[in-house]
Amino acid sequence: MRVRPCQAALVSAIALNLLLLFCAWRNPGAPAPLCRSPRAVPGVTVILRDFEDFESDLAGTARSFAALPVPVLVVAETPPYPPVPLPAGVALLRLHPDAAEPPPRLEMNIHTRHVALVPDGARAAPGLLERMRNALEAAGDAARLVAAPVGSKPVRCLELHVEPREWTARFSSLAAPPRTCGAVEGAAVLLLRTRDLLALPFPLARPVPTALFIQAALRRWRLLVMPAAFPAARRAPVSPHGRWKAENLAVNRRRRLMRDLGIKREVLADGSERWYGCGKETARCFGTVHAQTPQYLLAGRWTPPCCLRALRETTRHVVAALEAAGVRYWLEGGSLLGAVRLGDIIPWDYDVDLGIYREDVGKCRWLAAAATAPVEDAEGFLWEKATEGDFYRVHYSRSNRLHVDLWPFYARGAVMTKDTWLGHPQDVEFPERFLVPRVPVPFAGVTAMAPNNARAFLELKFGAGAIEKPEYPNPAVKRLEGAAEGVSPPPRGQ
Amino acid sequence: MRVRPCQAALVSAIALNLLLLFCAWRNPGAPAPLCRSPRAVPGVTVILRDFEDFESDLAGTARSFAALPVPVLVVAETPPYPPVPLPAGVALLRLHPDAAEPPPRLEMNIHTRHVALVPDGARAAPGLLERMRNALEAAGDAARLVAAPVGSKPVRCLELHVEPREWTARFSSLAAPPRTCGAVEGAAVLLLRTRDLLALPFPLARPVPTALFIQAALRRWRLLVMPAAFPAARRAPVSPHGRWKAENLAVNRRRRLMRDLGIKREVLADGSERWYGCGKETARCFGTVHAQTPQYLLAGRWTPPCCLRALRETTRHVVAALEAAGVRYWLEGGSLLGAVRLGDIIPWDYDVDLGIYREDVGKCRWLAAAATAPVEDAEGFLWEKATEGDFYRVHYSRSNRLHVDLWPFYARGAVMTKDTWLGHPQDVEFPERFLVPRVPVPFAGVTAMAPNNARAFLELKFGAGAIEKPEYPNPAVKRLEGAAEGVSPPPRGQ
Repeated sequence: MRVRPCQAALVSAIALNLLLLFCAWRNPGAPAPLCRSPRAVPGVTVILRDFEDFESDLAGTARSFAALPVPVLVVAETPPYPPVPLPAGVALLRLHPDAAEPPPRLEMNIHTRHVALVPDGARAAPGLLERMRNALEAAGDAARLVAAPVGSKPVRCLELHVEPREWTARFSSLAAPPRTCGAVEGAAVLLLRTRDLLALPFPLARPVPTALFIQAALRRWRLLVMPAAFPAARRAPVSPHGRWKAENLAVNRRRRLMRDLGIKREVLADGSERWYGCGKETARCFGTVHAQTPQYLLAGRWTPPCCLRALRETTRHVVAALEAAGVRYWLEGGSLLGAVRLGDIIPWDYDVDLGIYREDVGKCRWLAAAATAPVEDAEGFLWEKATEGDFYRVHYSRSNRLHVDLWPFYARGAVMTKDTWLGHPQDVEFPERFLVPRVPVPFAGVTAMAPNNARAFLELKFGAGAIEKPEYPNPAVKRLEGAAEGVSPPPRGQ
Repeated sequence: MRVRPCQAALVSAIALNLLLLFCAWRNPGAPAPLCRSPRAVPGVTVILRDFEDFESDLAGTARSFAALPVPVLVVAETPPYPPVPLPAGVALLRLHPDAAEPPPRLEMNIHTRHVALVPDGARAAPGLLERMRNALEAAGDAARLVAAPVGSKPVRCLELHVEPREWTARFSSLAAPPRTCGAVEGAAVLLLRTRDLLALPFPLARPVPTALFIQAALRRWRLLVMPAAFPAARRAPVSPHGRWKAENLAVNRRRRLMRDLGIKREVLADGSERWYGCGKETARCFGTVHAQTPQYLLAGRWTPPCCLRALRETTRHVVAALEAAGVRYWLEGGSLLGAVRLGDIIPWDYDVDLGIYREDVGKCRWLAAAATAPVEDAEGFLWEKATEGDFYRVHYSRSNRLHVDLWPFYARGAVMTKDTWLGHPQDVEFPERFLVPRVPVPFAGVTAMAPNNARAFLELKFGAGAIEKPEYPNPAVKRLEGAAEGVSPPPRGQ
């Protein structure tokens, strides 16, 4: 059959339309795929983001890369002040919106398929950005980022594990140099696909490398390190005042980044730790708990590690005070469950419960004092009688109300009972024989006293299998998924 | 000529493609127009944004509108806690990004051409959203927003002028009920085009009505008020603690909004004022000034009104102290220029300059004391000798370093001279006859002393035409555009 020219044209038109349709639908999960077209331009856009308003090398770095030539985009909250003379063709994206202008849109300022995040003070090396891009494309699924060092010092490859549930980012060094890293230490240019950068919720948070590494780790994106390096600018030494200012800003920036990313503890490669939030002077880092299910649990997270640390510290303090005063106490409820399961506070628990003999209350001067008014002891812990009933609370501090609850029981015949009941299933009477004798168990870094036959005690309170089958405090609101993972102890804060 | 079916099909295909191309290019200024397609669905999406985490009516409001049925979108920084049971089909957009998830995108959560921002506690009225939409579309360019009251109390129509250059939002009441308003007072549902909402830099800032009104005023978008009202829910009275909490949150939210929008003074319809930032206890609300051109001037703004107010207060305090002590002083440089032009500080000036007779310094106890060490007077102003040379500074407070500079001159023959010169063109010697006698002029709310023949004095210092031709302090860095507008005095802060 002979094909007429018109038929051929029609078939081509339909084929073209189908092709367009296919392109548009290729990434079904991605938002509005047709928006992607401006980023189809091959090439690399250099983004300058990590620089200070003072004593920076912004103009020099921008000029060097703009001369390659590649598109250069300077990104800042507000335009640098005093103004920095940027070479022609270098664009400035102001992140803090001006109320009278349209919203700033990073995606509208990048037209290339790849971006390179370049630290202040780097100098362009002809062809190196292209080689990084080729290395990324050749790596396939093995890497989503490529790093190249800046200056003569090689970068150090690190492993990075981020555990959102434990609010923790854990860097570690690698014995043998691996093919890919989780993060690198040292000044580096970082190259990735524009599509990947824009899929991150914090594409331009500072410090840029840490922000990218943590977000990449959460997505299991790996990092490939190039041997070739970009030159570093010869720069005048920074003044002592400038260095002090920059260090202060860096500390605050890192703190803000960790808050945004939901990280409260960084474990560095040398084993040292950095903690964010939740100190003796701050408020408790979670609010009033409703239905025994704290807000963080609903968000799929466990108790922030700094809170667990503060709870452990309060527990040790209270246990020492009770023992010194001769008050007979024992681990109660969820705390005893944690002691038996893992020798520690259950990683999603938000307080510690101790039982005490009511007749011993007067032996401890702080408890005796608290009976009339809240009292702060010499170490800054606050002892008070709860307003909700006949029990005591020891808070981590006056402002940070993480606490250990002390429940006064008394013997009625052979049964231990008390006057305040909160209606939880585990809040029940029990035979005094569990306390005669009490037995020592490891808990929260000390040896604390517990009922003898803890298993029977716990099954009486929580029902059969309580030890083996971990569950969140109120499964009707939020259930623990994947029970096996629940029993492994969280990495200790100290 | 006979058209073959194939030719007809080809022409249709080409026409369709051209149409698509036309649609895609219709809004050339808009970002990636093809992204718009999901919002082509006729209808109104209800957005619930202004609600509290406690004692709110979120579930009731959502249920009422979802039953219309229309799409309902709840927008919050983080999911409400304790959790609110939302009816099926009501979507929740969490604004604070989760580091492990893609960025939240408002535009991907609205699929209709119009949106309605509904206050907490409103109830749906069948057909009213459609009537609002029709009213908007019928209004053409006359209105870009439509408001309908909630409850039986009618809303009050206000005029709103936003002057970014003066950091001021000015509400005023209107004598005759006009066709359109700048803002409304009272609970109201606000309807606008989705396209317009998304073109705003702060589409979801809270409180929603104020945020929308101010951004609309900056774009000259007008507001149409519907007579018909949405019912208000019968709600349990809010507890005193809840009201206290909500009021506190509202104050902080408004403060944050004004900071984001760059508003430092609101003038309300009753003439009362609300000031944001820049107090005796805060730091000066602009940083070190480089090249005589403060950062705000580069951003096209004048001195924040709170700074002008504090400068006026400091000036009055210093003038009173100098006069009480018998120190001969006179308005110098830019301050004299401002006094002659408009009886006030020049609206973009960042300090006040006074000349004094050096031999009189000892007469003023604060100046005498400042010669050895900075000293805070009884009203909290800080007097100090400048480290940069032989002159004095009086700061608004120890933390807020807005200041009046005092330049000690002495007579050498018939010429007034001094020992410190900052190299500004106006920083020159002058004949003492300008000071014999000094003459009173109104300045910054008081009567201050000035050189006689101020015009000749100013032309000696700044050159001919200095009074008539206002200019920014360093035209090489930033020029005043549209000289005429420069001479009108700014609205007085007090």
